[in-house]
Amino acid sequence: MGFEPSARAQDLIGRVEEFIRTEIEPVEAQLHAATRAAADPWQPQPLFKELQAKARAQGLWNLFLPPAEPGNEQYGEGLPNLDYAPIAELTGRSFIAPYVFNCNAPDTGNMEVLLRYGNDEQKEQWLKPLLDATIRSAFCMTEPGVASSDATNMVATAIVEGDEVVLNGRKWWSTGVGNPECELLIFMGLTDPEAHRYARHTMVLVPIDTPGVKVERLLPAMGRYDEPFGHGEVSVTDVRVPASNILVGPGRAVEIAQGRLGPGRVHHCMRLIGLAEKSLELALQRGTSRHAFGKPLVNLGGNRERIADARIAINQARLLVLQTAYLLDTVGLQGALSEVSQIKVVAPRMAQDVIDMAIQLHGGGGLSDDYPLAAAWTTARALRLADGPDEVHRGVVARIELASYLAERKEESK
Amino acid sequence: MGFEPSARAQDLIGRVEEFIRTEIEPVEAQLHAATRAAADPWQPQPLFKELQAKARAQGLWNLFLPPAEPGNEQYGEGLPNLDYAPIAELTGRSFIAPYVFNCNAPDTGNMEVLLRYGNDEQKEQWLKPLLDATIRSAFCMTEPGVASSDATNMVATAIVEGDEVVLNGRKWWSTGVGNPECELLIFMGLTDPEAHRYARHTMVLVPIDTPGVKVERLLPAMGRYDEPFGHGEVSVTDVRVPASNILVGPGRAVEIAQGRLGPGRVHHCMRLIGLAEKSLELALQRGTSRHAFGKPLVNLGGNRERIADARIAINQARLLVLQTAYLLDTVGLQGALSEVSQIKVVAPRMAQDVIDMAIQLHGGGGLSDDYPLAAAWTTARALRLADGPDEVHRGVVARIELASYLAERKEESK
Amino acid sequence: MGFEPSARAQDLIGRVEEFIRTEIEPVEAQLHAATRAAADPWQPQPLFKELQAKARAQGLWNLFLPPAEPGNEQYGEGLPNLDYAPIAELTGRSFIAPYVFNCNAPDTGNMEVLLRYGNDEQKEQWLKPLLDATIRSAFCMTEPGVASSDATNMVATAIVEGDEVVLNGRKWWSTGVGNPECELLIFMGLTDPEAHRYARHTMVLVPIDTPGVKVERLLPAMGRYDEPFGHGEVSVTDVRVPASNILVGPGRAVEIAQGRLGPGRVHHCMRLIGLAEKSLELALQRGTSRHAFGKPLVNLGGNRERIADARIAINQARLLVLQTAYLLDTVGLQGALSEVSQIKVVAPRMAQDVIDMAIQLHGGGGLSDDYPLAAAWTTARALRLADGPDEVHRGVVARIELASYLAERKEESK
Amino acid sequence: MGFEPSARAQDLIGRVEEFIRTEIEPVEAQLHAATRAAADPWQPQPLFKELQAKARAQGLWNLFLPPAEPGNEQYGEGLPNLDYAPIAELTGRSFIAPYVFNCNAPDTGNMEVLLRYGNDEQKEQWLKPLLDATIRSAFCMTEPGVASSDATNMVATAIVEGDEVVLNGRKWWSTGVGNPECELLIFMGLTDPEAHRYARHTMVLVPIDTPGVKVERLLPAMGRYDEPFGHGEVSVTDVRVPASNILVGPGRAVEIAQGRLGPGRVHHCMRLIGLAEKSLELALQRGTSRHAFGKPLVNLGGNRERIADARIAINQARLLVLQTAYLLDTVGLQGALSEVSQIKVVAPRMAQDVIDMAIQLHGGGGLSDDYPLAAAWTTARALRLADGPDEVHRGVVARIELASYLAERKEESK
Repeated sequence: MGFEPSARAQDLIGRVEEFIRTEIEPVEAQLHAATRAAADPWQPQPLFKELQAKARAQGLWNLFLPPAEPGNEQYGEGLPNLDYAPIAELTGRSFIAPYVFNCNAPDTGNMEVLLRYGNDEQKEQWLKPLLDATIRSAFCMTEPGVASSDATNMVATAIVEGDEVVLNGRKWWSTGVGNPECELLIFMGLTDPEAHRYARHTMVLVPIDTPGVKVERLLPAMGRYDEPFGHGEVSVTDVRVPASNILVGPGRAVEIAQGRLGPGRVHHCMRLIGLAEKSLELALQRGTSRHAFGKPLVNLGGNRERIADARIAINQARLLVLQTAYLLDTVGLQGALSEVSQIKVVAPRMAQDVIDMAIQLHGGGGLSDDYPLAAAWTTARALRLADGPDEVHRGVVARIELASYLAERKEESK
Repeated sequence: MGFEPSARAQDLIGRVEEFIRTEIEPVEAQLHAATRAAADPWQPQPLFKELQAKARAQGLWNLFLPPAEPGNEQYGEGLPNLDYAPIAELTGRSFIAPYVFNCNAPDTGNMEVLLRYGNDEQKEQWLKPLLDATIRSAFCMTEPGVASSDATNMVATAIVEGDEVVLNGRKWWSTGVGNPECELLIFMGLTDPEAHRYARHTMVLVPIDTPGVKVERLLPAMGRYDEPFGHGEVSVTDVRVPASNILVGPGRAVEIAQGRLGPGRVHHCMRLIGLAEKSLELALQRGTSRHAFGKPLVNLGGNRERIADARIAINQARLLVLQTAYLLDTVGLQGALSEVSQIKVVAPRMAQDVIDMAIQLHGGGGLSDDYPLAAAWTTARALRLADGPDEVHRGVVARIELASYLAERKEESK
Repeated sequence: MGFEPSARAQDLIGRVEEFIRTEIEPVEAQLHAATRAAADPWQPQPLFKELQAKARAQGLWNLFLPPAEPGNEQYGEGLPNLDYAPIAELTGRSFIAPYVFNCNAPDTGNMEVLLRYGNDEQKEQWLKPLLDATIRSAFCMTEPGVASSDATNMVATAIVEGDEVVLNGRKWWSTGVGNPECELLIFMGLTDPEAHRYARHTMVLVPIDTPGVKVERLLPAMGRYDEPFGHGEVSVTDVRVPASNILVGPGRAVEIAQGRLGPGRVHHCMRLIGLAEKSLELALQRGTSRHAFGKPLVNLGGNRERIADARIAINQARLLVLQTAYLLDTVGLQGALSEVSQIKVVAPRMAQDVIDMAIQLHGGGGLSDDYPLAAAWTTARALRLADGPDEVHRGVVARIELASYLAERKEESK
Repeated sequence: MGFEPSARAQDLIGRVEEFIRTEIEPVEAQLHAATRAAADPWQPQPLFKELQAKARAQGLWNLFLPPAEPGNEQYGEGLPNLDYAPIAELTGRSFIAPYVFNCNAPDTGNMEVLLRYGNDEQKEQWLKPLLDATIRSAFCMTEPGVASSDATNMVATAIVEGDEVVLNGRKWWSTGVGNPECELLIFMGLTDPEAHRYARHTMVLVPIDTPGVKVERLLPAMGRYDEPFGHGEVSVTDVRVPASNILVGPGRAVEIAQGRLGPGRVHHCMRLIGLAEKSLELALQRGTSRHAFGKPLVNLGGNRERIADARIAINQARLLVLQTAYLLDTVGLQGALSEVSQIKVVAPRMAQDVIDMAIQLHGGGGLSDDYPLAAAWTTARALRLADGPDEVHRGVVARIELASYLAERKEESK
């Protein structure tokens, strides 16, 4: 692999792999079964806390954090994107590993936001317990009533009144609100419709028990609620919090949302690559062990070609995501805007296709929950929409390509 | 349309369309909600029976039946495949319409089997109540332990002992067994492993309350149980029924399963075309009413091209299915074997792609159950495996193509 | 086949098939070789005339003509589109068959134009010799300087001055101008830029030897000149012809171009289907006779699945084109506008893919001219642009789909 | 870019780019025109030698060579694969640049073969003039009569008789034999059919003027002869050369062919990436400058999405090829066998698709030779077969994937 992780990262990668293999994989199926069988599936099984404690004891904790910055050292030291990427890939092989290592979305993104944009009080109050996993959080941006792929479209309001800010509106696909440990919402609201498009919205920290906050319902994604970590629709009606709960200042929400972008997409995409690798492995297992028409499945029809195509697609996707991580580490988000959109187009679709192939090889079993494939498919499918549909990201890539072409032409004609 | 339905069919098509529009569409969403909210979602809502009664009163009942044959006139008269096809398409636009008109799988296939292969006693006992929809049935062929795309692989046993037949084994994806009204299983078991590959298995009528029959569990397909019509895993342990419950005779199961094939696939595929039309309609609705970046969605990026591709794909699929129906009506299954496999490759994939496009246009809403798209997707996806995976059907098409090519060459070289 | 040709057509189909098999296929390769070896490859080989004479003697001549209309009976009687379609398919299996039967583009379209829009003098002067194949013709619409997919864009001029019309401009992809027998150009020029978009252009009959007409160069399509029937770039500079050479009247060109559309596309698409059938046949021949890794090629990897996909794609395309022919015959062009664009999207792409697959099975031989595949590919590729690129036709299909959806909505809301 | 070239390479890359921009691009079109217009298009235009002299004077010469090895220092020092890759990409933007820098296939591969496997006399006689570009060479492996994707299939013979070796057989797609400067054939023949599959064939150096060598014909690839560098069919009849012309020893041909593989594929694939970049640039140029329906083409329909998909596909392909180059440099061919096949599947198909998109945007012009796109397409298409069809490479990737999976399973089960 041309993108070599550092020695420190290599050590962590090995230990994360070992932990997943010995601590998580043997119990994961039974944990899902216990969740399904529980009277309240939204109550996380106690095993989660046990696994988290073990992972933390081994130093496999909050690895998603960026390298410590001046003034932020006390919140722990993470890894550059290129070093964290292979770890994210490993955690993507399991539905629960991201939670066990406290590296799950949306808490990772929310912690990054607090780290970068929170003041000391905000960090003390919210970042610390999130880093300790004693509380969970949600990110309330997407709205049911508007095309949310354009963040500047949001119509929920965040009006500053004296030393308070008053929130009204409706959000959905707020991941994590079904979890009873969720205590914090990061809420994006429209403050000044007359301001510049990028300066209209404000990001506000809202304790979930503030009067006026209501989880209206939990949402199935392609039929699944993903208990206990699923997605909800949240209404806020005349919710009042102190103006000190505003992140950075009024009108800064788009800037904050942007800063959350790059690493979050790298994480998502690397996890999808792990999921695709896991699915390919299951396809190989099934294809070599199940027989039909006198041959192992893998030797029937075009199955070997599909295996090859899956291997090639995974490799290509991984290299593109690693390249993006490398760019984020070296030139920052502004130099990687196209790549950050490119990987959002590539990774979910690639994973969906590999998983679909693996399902097909599993026959009816692939549709059932006897294998993790059906749930894996839902994850990949949802990520073709979450954080902007493929089509919007293609638009971004094309816009940057055209701008760069036209700039070069201008340069030449000088 | 070049495949014109008869005048009788055109009248029925108009009335079915009207019934769906006025009686089913207005109540379908609430019916699904009631099912989900019910203490026992597997108990069909009373509304079903009401709708069935209305449909029957209007003569919109058992339309799937083939034209009456000598000796079978008393069981009602249906339509040629080409005439029934557009009706099947219409019912495919709704998840419940097939049940309302008593035209749902697997009962339709089971009724055909009884009609064609049942003796008078068997028809009296089982076909009549099925035609009256007072009972429901399941078809127990697919097994979890073997590649079931090859029907001759089945290992569950049906041993004739004197005037009894003894059944043992495990079946899954037995659609309908979750429904409390399900009273009959048509069970395929291995009787004589030494016989010719196509003469080893026997088809047996098994009352579901026979001792030894156990519905082990209900199976989710891509996360959905499809209550109250869903799929189950069924074990039969030393189940004894009279040998008179055998259809036709021992060793005749493959022949019977074959006869079930052609029309059943035409029905499935036409329903998928209806589902795709419905999804395209939803895409148009969303695409023209929701705006982003200052335009209706349909005018963004490649959305219009996707709409065009969907229209073209639907039209091409419909024509191929109608052509297959026409061949079944004119030259019979043996003259349509390739086409019957071709449509199984084409229709589910086409529907899945059209639905996926419509989901993408709906954003997060498309993933939720606020629209029928997520459930539609599951239907199409499952049908890429049900009744043989795409890959097996491609193999059949290639085999026939090669045989026909080689036969022609031989002919020429004479 | 559900779209049955008439008895008369079936007889013709059988005789055309026989003629191609016995008269054309045995000599086609040597005819191409003779053309390539000739000092002037643009001079048609004498064999053409001999074959034409034989075909004509057998009544296999001008079969493309529409059924005789009142007043036009003397120009011969053709077939409805649905009857001619299978004949067009057969001729598409050979590069020269269309010429042998006097059924080749663009002469067919030009003859239709003269038949429908020519006055008696114009018919006498040009249509008769075209029907007799004593002269050839070209259609001069597409221009190098403008996006010609929109016919109203053309900037070459046709100015009426007294009883003359004066032409200026440059056209390209004028098929047939390289052939020394080409005597007539049908030229489209801008007459009144102020008129309604559809009434600006005029269609003029221009003898190729009129002073000012110059064939600037012959154009290779993907490296091939397609001698002796290829394409040219033509300049017209102050060309003057009598105003009586105008078809119908000034400003009627778009209407005339439209009328040329429907049947022409059906012909092109059916020929492509014949070409795809021929290519699939070659793929089967190669796949069953050549061995690698110890097996016939057809049994390696995904080759059988590709054969199946080719069969399915051909069948679906054929049904769509036949359906379009049927609509043209029954409801006319206005009722088939979407279908006429749909087949232009489907057939060339399908043929290109099938041919590509066949080339791949032929290895290096497939790239060479030892097989007709490389040339076939060029034909299919060029037709993805000729007569409007795929993307424009998708746009037409989408526009009609949206209009129809919105009209229905309006109807419903009344 | 995560795969950073060395400082030395960066300097060379800059100078190669400058040379192409200032010396090659301004004259390339006229050079092609001169070749086409020449009485003998197979005679290279004098401009080639002038450009070569300039390039050599600037040290832009034989850059494809691997780093000098002990004993081979006198033959010049090249670059590691990862350093040469971006240079190969740049040369791929032009059809003649590879020749100008003496970096064109098949001479590069032949020079590598001589460098690695030639003895001192062989190097002196053939390698030196090849490095000086005073002669050219061809590689004679592929045969018309057998599936040549499996090198062990070759049936042409190389029989050792005393101190001579006698050659018989027929080869085709021998690139370069049409060029009058071609003096050397590297010929692969069957020596001992009884030996192990990989030890049957022998590689022999054959002066092209040896009696019995005949260039039977030159072959068009998709209609193009690619003068003056094109491909031929060569017969050898009782050709006798001294046994000292054998490379390494009898039976070593497969080993030698293998060693030629890795870098050669990286070169081909990087050139294809350059070709795709060039084509995307042309697409952007056309898409922004040509208007239809009132908009620049790039803003019509799905064109922007296609631009984005092209950018993403190019980036993914480049990363995979660079990763392969990196593996060849660090772990060698044996550790990169799957990747070396992966890039052969990915790069030609990717380039073909990007070029096809660019052609489509150019309308009829894209089919003509007014743009380099039609010729570029042929290059990419031919490379889907040259050096093994895609399907064979997919088979290799699948085989390695399965072997690796099964090895891991075995490891685990210990």
